[in-house]
Amino acid sequence: MSRLTQQMDFILAADRLKTVQRQTLLADGTRHENSAEHSWHIALAALVLAEHAAVKDLDLFRVVQMLLVHDLVEIDAGDTYCYDEAAQAEQPAREAAAADRLFALLPADQAARLRGLWDDFQAQASPEARFAHTLDRVQPLLNNFATQGRIWRAHGIPRARVAARQAPAFTAAPAIAAFVAELLEESVRRGYLGDDSEPPVQTP
Amino acid sequence: MSRLTQQMDFILAADRLKTVQRQTLLADGTRHENSAEHSWHIALAALVLAEHAAVKDLDLFRVVQMLLVHDLVEIDAGDTYCYDEAAQAEQPAREAAAADRLFALLPADQAARLRGLWDDFQAQASPEARFAHTLDRVQPLLNNFATQGRIWRAHGIPRARVAARQAPAFTAAPAIAAFVAELLEESVRRGYLGDDSEPPVQTP
Repeated sequence: MSRLTQQMDFILAADRLKTVQRQTLLADGTRHENSAEHSWHIALAALVLAEHAAVKDLDLFRVVQMLLVHDLVEIDAGDTYCYDEAAQAEQPAREAAAADRLFALLPADQAARLRGLWDDFQAQASPEARFAHTLDRVQPLLNNFATQGRIWRAHGIPRARVAARQAPAFTAAPAIAAFVAELLEESVRRGYLGDDSEPPVQTP
Repeated sequence: MSRLTQQMDFILAADRLKTVQRQTLLADGTRHENSAEHSWHIALAALVLAEHAAVKDLDLFRVVQMLLVHDLVEIDAGDTYCYDEAAQAEQPAREAAAADRLFALLPADQAARLRGLWDDFQAQASPEARFAHTLDRVQPLLNNFATQGRIWRAHGIPRARVAARQAPAFTAAPAIAAFVAELLEESVRRGYLGDDSEPPVQTP
């Protein structure tokens, strides 16, 4: 098989990420978003929010590349809801097996390069990975706020758990962390999110 | 409004691209794809296919940024089917108005930068824009082939019109142009696409 044919096969295989449904709703609340359009959304967000990164010589192209590949493993491993602890326990093994299969569709040099981006993202070992995580976590927040916290309320998620998920922003982008804190405060005030002292309002 | 709030408002507004339906089907044929996930798909393709660009000092990050913003105007202007000539006539005016509104949601410096990327893409004025167009046109081809040309057949599109759409590849990426020519040949052989001498097979 030619190098180009291998690359086209990988691109075609990647199409399946469009069928992986996430918990997050679209901002208009009409349906759940999928992992492919989510990946686009946060890659676009990176272009707009880069100036808020704490590290000033951030390699923004590396951030964007990381975001474009960060969810590919879900093609095999599925999306794991970030507040589902049982599913989270098995997630690393499932995702590593998926990475082994999917990146290997590419010519070896490209497989290694894209796998390297994904490994870095997973480990949050670089400033780029930590900024990428910040974006991966703030976008669902915007959508949850826009939909009056429907998914938070359905799962009975309290503020402290949402806030804990946003930890990468504190070191990677303090201005974004401050924005997030304000958004969570307002979410509690409006009843989108349960205060930590009381369970959230349960609505159908 | 603070700069960060303006940026977050733009990111939230961009969410609507997930609701813009394209003619192209997912590779598994289960539904039409939307413009947000399509944008992700071709940005990922750029990372994998860059080596086939005719211009060797291509600014790949510029290509990727262009692909991330290239369809944003469809939020207001809708997707225009590339073989619908009537809709195509009004498309530039509709899209320019959409660009005026959408990019202006951002702080002025970022609005100018992203608008500049979109203008370059539209004009195909740079090697980056021409390579971006190549990717924008080859991905639907992969999906059309994977779905046995269902959309081509539904619209009665002959090979010559599909081939003409692929023109950017000839100068921007000759190896991709050769791949495309082979894919079209095979599509005609299998009856996915009508030969130019005869109308395509009409199936439900």
